[in-house]
This record gives sequence, structure tokens and C-alpha cells, in this order.
Amino acid sequence: MGKFIYLDNAATTKIAPEVMETMLPYFTEYFGNPSSVYGFASQNKERIAKQRERIASILGAKENEIYFTGGGTESDNWALKATAEAYGAKGKHIITSRIEHHAILHTCEYLEKQHGFEVTYLDVDENGIVDLEALKKAIRPDTILISIMFANNEIGSIQPIKEIGQIAHEHGILFHTDAVQAFGQILIDVDACHIDMLSASGHKINGPKGIGFLYIRKGVKIRSFIHGGAQERKRRAGTENVPGIIGLGKAAELAADSMEERTAAERALRDYMIERIEKEIPYCRLNGDRTKRLPNNVNFSFRFIEGESLLIMLDMKGICASSGSACTSGSLDPSHVLLAIGLPHEIAHGSLRMTLGADTSKDDIDYVVEELKKIVEHLRGMSPLYEDFVRKQANK
Amino acid sequence: MGKFIYLDNAATTKIAPEVMETMLPYFTEYFGNPSSVYGFASQNKERIAKQRERIASILGAKENEIYFTGGGTESDNWALKATAEAYGAKGKHIITSRIEHHAILHTCEYLEKQHGFEVTYLDVDENGIVDLEALKKAIRPDTILISIMFANNEIGSIQPIKEIGQIAHEHGILFHTDAVQAFGQILIDVDACHIDMLSASGHKINGPKGIGFLYIRKGVKIRSFIHGGAQERKRRAGTENVPGIIGLGKAAELAADSMEERTAAERALRDYMIERIEKEIPYCRLNGDRTKRLPNNVNFSFRFIEGESLLIMLDMKGICASSGSACTSGSLDPSHVLLAIGLPHEIAHGSLRMTLGADTSKDDIDYVVEELKKIVEHLRGMSPLYEDFVRKQANK
Ligand SMILES: Cc1ncc(COP(=O)(O)O)c(C=O)c1O
Ligand SMILES: Cc1ncc(COP(=O)(O)O)c(C=O)c1O
Repeated sequence: MGKFIYLDNAATTKIAPEVMETMLPYFTEYFGNPSSVYGFASQNKERIAKQRERIASILGAKENEIYFTGGGTESDNWALKATAEAYGAKGKHIITSRIEHHAILHTCEYLEKQHGFEVTYLDVDENGIVDLEALKKAIRPDTILISIMFANNEIGSIQPIKEIGQIAHEHGILFHTDAVQAFGQILIDVDACHIDMLSASGHKINGPKGIGFLYIRKGVKIRSFIHGGAQERKRRAGTENVPGIIGLGKAAELAADSMEERTAAERALRDYMIERIEKEIPYCRLNGDRTKRLPNNVNFSFRFIEGESLLIMLDMKGICASSGSACTSGSLDPSHVLLAIGLPHEIAHGSLRMTLGADTSKDDIDYVVEELKKIVEHLRGMSPLYEDFVRKQANK
Repeated sequence: MGKFIYLDNAATTKIAPEVMETMLPYFTEYFGNPSSVYGFASQNKERIAKQRERIASILGAKENEIYFTGGGTESDNWALKATAEAYGAKGKHIITSRIEHHAILHTCEYLEKQHGFEVTYLDVDENGIVDLEALKKAIRPDTILISIMFANNEIGSIQPIKEIGQIAHEHGILFHTDAVQAFGQILIDVDACHIDMLSASGHKINGPKGIGFLYIRKGVKIRSFIHGGAQERKRRAGTENVPGIIGLGKAAELAADSMEERTAAERALRDYMIERIEKEIPYCRLNGDRTKRLPNNVNFSFRFIEGESLLIMLDMKGICASSGSACTSGSLDPSHVLLAIGLPHEIAHGSLRMTLGADTSKDDIDYVVEELKKIVEHLRGMSPLYEDFVRKQANK
């Protein structure tokens, strides 16, 4: 096999070997249904409780505030739809931002269309940050929920979550945050940030796919989204995905334990990469905030270029990267996040997201930058827009 | 380790070694997000399509009618809630049975309480079979859905699905079946049975937990239950659980390929076990239909006995079994299924479900019957009810 450099850790991550090792026996050996009475299976109930504890302690939460789900999307759906249902009599207004993941945006659209909710989509500034004054102004007497993501999956910008939580708290409004990209990368304290609900996903933190959790603060009266058996203290039915939960717990612990060191290294590499690209590739633009930024996120727009072609040529060099969000790549619409930070369509189209992992090395970055330079030059060489631009510059 | 005889395959199953082997590389090697553009990850999209095809061909369905979910419970919730939403304008009446799994019953209760639906819960006869005449009578002009399980998880009774589908079809009513226990045990043809939607789950067929599917016939206009990204042809959002899907596909194929031989062997062992218990343990009652019965299900009530104590003592002998459904065991309510077939509370309490697997042997069964005899005798020896009964018999 040739080069293989994986810079798409925001799309999904490789399971850590320790996580895999911990999960394995639960597939074939301790395979029992945790609801069963006999010891062989009921032990799994305690093992699940232990993962809850692990995750709770990372967030400064209590064990019985963690509920396992089938992933970040389900957690987001649950938080929004169940809040709408439980608090809809109080009011039918929700505040979110324009740059949320589709798991939030499409759920909001659903609540608008099917359940008569009104949703305010807050603008963000050119760095992708929500404005606190705008948030305050958007609050109405019938606002029942503020849902703002902790960190953005495309451009990595980190929101002022503590301040948003404070505002929500002062107004007696529930606060949900989609922390699918932030959990494991940023220290989160649900109390300090006044977070009432928080979504996270296993496969973004070197854990398994198809598992996630929703933190629900004690006292928040949301009910089930998935009805059935009495699992998860009667709030989320379905036979527990035991290996998934065990893997998620382990991955969360590993991510928390390694956070300081790992993110420091990623941040250094990230900034090195940003610096090289800005210095060595003309007509590029860094998307997202320079400092309030996920430690592993690099996102650039290159003028006169199609992101799709860029990805294909990078792939040919063994480099895995992304344009827009993983969920919409494959579609030809420009990313709603890049449009929200003010990029014109044609520039949003020429965007590239590279998200580092714990095992990304400086050599990897150097290789990628070198290849990227050549590819951008090559693609621009074929671009009539670029030709036009160069001619105009020369005529000035 | 001492004896270990697992007779709780209706609660969950052990992953087959071939399934595990097939899944493994997708955790650590082919871990890419199927939505990504580069080949390493986008191959997973085709691999997922292949599992869809495998499952579709088992059911006589088309590839694009299979949608992966987080399990049987999610599939049931999706089918019911999304049908209620999409067809609610046409009518707000649903027909189901009293012996459905809680994933159906609690979802129906939710639709009644929160969305103004009316649900008819059909009675079943003493063998747990729905009456077709009663079904016909229950149909109203505003009936939009009939949801009847293919086979019951507690007593194993198999419903006349073909006839039910025929009735639904004639009346232009959608037909959903919870086939979580039937899929892989019974040959199912969705066309012959006029099934419009069908739920199944991985972990009941020696596949992984946390994965399932919903078959949705082309033309059925239900929308998403989980909103977000464009996965599963925009009908079920969330990063695909690639290893889970691969495992489910493999498990389904193995189950289908081995079905005839495996279920013949299970049926023989099942009947042997039933015969021995009926012959050798007095005051017992077989629950469920004697012939229209899942090949691996044995369910008995033993008078004068608490099911809970029975389970604990069986556990001490290395035997894993269940009372009631896995989801309610641990609760003290008697099973709604056993009450529905007419058992009085005290007899429903003394019930035991044993569900065989592909690797259950005649020796296992002999061992279990011998232990069961001793345990039942022992528990009756301590039962004042039994003492009373014996005295009265003697006085006759
Ligand atoms: C008949 C039936 N329906 C639904 C379910 C729920 O399936 P899952 O545990 O995959 O959510 C089960 C098993 O628990 C079942 O036996
Ligand atoms: C910010 C954000 N929210 C939600 C999700 C959805 O999570 P999952 O793929 O686990 O459903 C993702 C990733 O796809 C994400 O990046």
C-alpha cells in the first residue's frame, strides 16, 4: 500500500486498539442481555453503569444523568423533539444557530413544519461565532430551548458556551449543546456552563459507530424519544448495545486522560499547517476562528478551485480529507456553514477541511502541504476563472 | 467454569464467529465514513448496499426497501410514529394485538396520549393467536395501520401473517409486522404476506446489538423518524454503523442459509423438551401454540411456584433462562402476554421461557430437564400454596 494519511477525523475516527480490546469480549463472551436475571447477563448492567459513571465524571455530571443512544444524531433528535413535546405547552419558540449540524437543523425544520414551532436561526460572524447580544435579543417569553453547538464540525469554531449557558439560565430557558465535535477535545463542565442537555457520539473519539449519549440534567422533564422496554431508566428503550457502550466508555476515558497532551500536540501541528498553507499557497482563506478553534481543525478555501476535484486529487496521493461536512459531501450544494460565515458560493465550493488525529505527524503535514501546493497550482492552471483573474491582474 | 447452558436466545444471542470475523476489519481498518468522497471510505457505501441486497433477497424485497436502524425498537417506533404522522390526516385508528412487544405497545400508548390516536388491542386466544374475524370487525374507515407481530417473543406463537396481510391489503390499510423474533427463524416473503413494513434486529440472529432494519415497501410514504444527514436515502440520519451493518448482513445470510436444517433440529429438540417436561413435571402448562410456534421456544407455567426463584436456582446450576420478556423481567408485574392468553396472575408468575440456539444439544436439554424437575419439586416443597393444595387433594 502507498501513502495513507487520514485527515478526516471530524467525519469519523479509527477505533483505538485499547477500545477494541475492551469491547471484544462483550461480543462473544459476555454477550448477555443486561435485563436478564441470571448473573452472567445481569453483570452487564453494572458494567454499563460503570461507563455511565466514567462519562459523567468527565463532564462533572452524575451517573444517572447519562443516557446511551444510537449516536449523536439520535441524541440531538431526542433533545429537541422531547423538549418540544414536554415544554410545548409553555411555548413554541426555539433558538439555534445557522451553523448547526443537520441533525439539529433538520430536526428544527421538522418541528416548524409538523408541530407549529418557530425557530430563530442566529447568524454568526465571519469567524463562525454566535453573537451574545443577538442571542439575548432573540429570547422571547415563549422561548423554551436554546440549542447551540459547542464546536462546529466544519470550521472548528468554538462557541462561548459558558456565556450562552449563563444567558439561558438567567432567563429560565433550557440549554442544549451538540458537543459531538467538542467532547473529548475540550474540557466541558456541565455545571459551570449551565448545560441542561448535551449530545455526544462514540465514533468521533476513536470509539465505535452507532453509539452515543445524551446528558440530561436531573430535573429536565423530557420523556422518551424511543419507546418500548424499560432500559436506560425507562427513558430510552431497546436492548442495550453492550459492546458499544463499553467501547464508548473506554474511548471517553482515553480521550479525557490524553486530552491535555494530545490537544496541545494537535494544536501545534494545526497552527504549523495553517501557517505553511497561508504562506505558501496564494489566494487562500482560513475559515473559522483562529484561536477559538478545535485543536485538530484546519479549513481553507482556495479561490478558483472546486473542492470536489481537490478531494479527488488528494485521494490519489493517499490523503483523506473533506469538503463541507461529511454528511453533505457527495451533494453539490455548498456548505451552509461556509455560506453563513459570508463566503460567496464560488469560494465556498473551493473549500477543504483537514482534521488531524492523535497519530498525525509533522511529516504527514509536510507531505500534505507539498501535495496540496502542487494540486492547487495544477487545478488553477486548468481554471478559466483563474486565467481571467491573472490576466486582469496583469492589466492593472 | 462449571456448566453453562444458554437457553435465552430470544433475549439475545451470541455473535457467530463468522459474523465477528466479517465485522472486525470494519472497526479498525475500513473505518471510513461512507459519506466521504475518497475511495477508502466511499467503498463502505457499496459494502452497505451489498448488505441491503442480502437482506432484501431473503425477504423477497428490493435493495432500496431496506433501511438500517439502531435496533428492533427503533424500527418499531419508526414504523408506527412515522405512519401516524404521514397518514394521520387520513385517519387516526391503529389496530394491534395485546401481546405485542413493549416497543409496539408503549409506542401505541404514546400515540394515544400525545397524538389523539385510537388503538384497538386485539385479544388473542388461549394459544396466543389473533382471531381474523375479530381483526376484520375492528377495521374502521379511519384505520390507517395494522401492526401485528410475526411471532411472539415470550410464548413463541406465530400469527397468521399471510391472512392478516391479505385482510389489510383488501381494505387498503398499511400492514406492519414486528418480525424481530421471526426473521431468521421463519421463511418470510413480504409480497406473499402483503407486508408493507417489517422490523428486525441483529442481536436476535447471532448478529450484533445496536443494529436492526426496517423494511419499507416502495410507495409507503413514511418520512424520517431520526432527522439529520442524508444517510439511508435521506430517511434515517446518522453516521452509518458500518461494522454493525456488515455484521447484520452476514448474520442474516447465515440465518437464512442454515434455516431449514437448524430450525428442524431446534424443533425436534423443542418438542422433545416439551414432551419430557409435560410427562415428568406435574401441574405444568405449556404456554403458546403447540405447532404454530417458533422452532426454539419452550414456555411453561408451573403452578405453586415463583418464576423469579426458579430462575435464580436454574442460574445456580449454570442454566440461563427467562421469565416473561427480557425487558420486563426484573419487574414484578406478570407478563402482559401470559395475562392475555388467560393465565391467572399467580400462574403467570410461575412461568419459565427457555429458548434454544443452534448449538443447544440433547444433552443440554436432558441436563436442564433433570435440574428443573428437582428445582420445581424443591420450590413446591417450600410452598404453602402447594401444601394446601396437596392436603385438599388428599381430603377429596
Ligand atoms: C418481538 C420483539 N420486538 C422488538 C424487540 C426489540 O428489539 P431490540 O432489542 O433490538 O430493540 C424485541 C426484543 O427485545 C422483540 O422480541
Ligand atoms: C456537530 C455534529 N453533530 C452531530 C453529528 C451526528 O453524529 P452521528 O454521526 O454520531 O449521528 C455530527 C457528525 O456527524 C457532528 O459533527
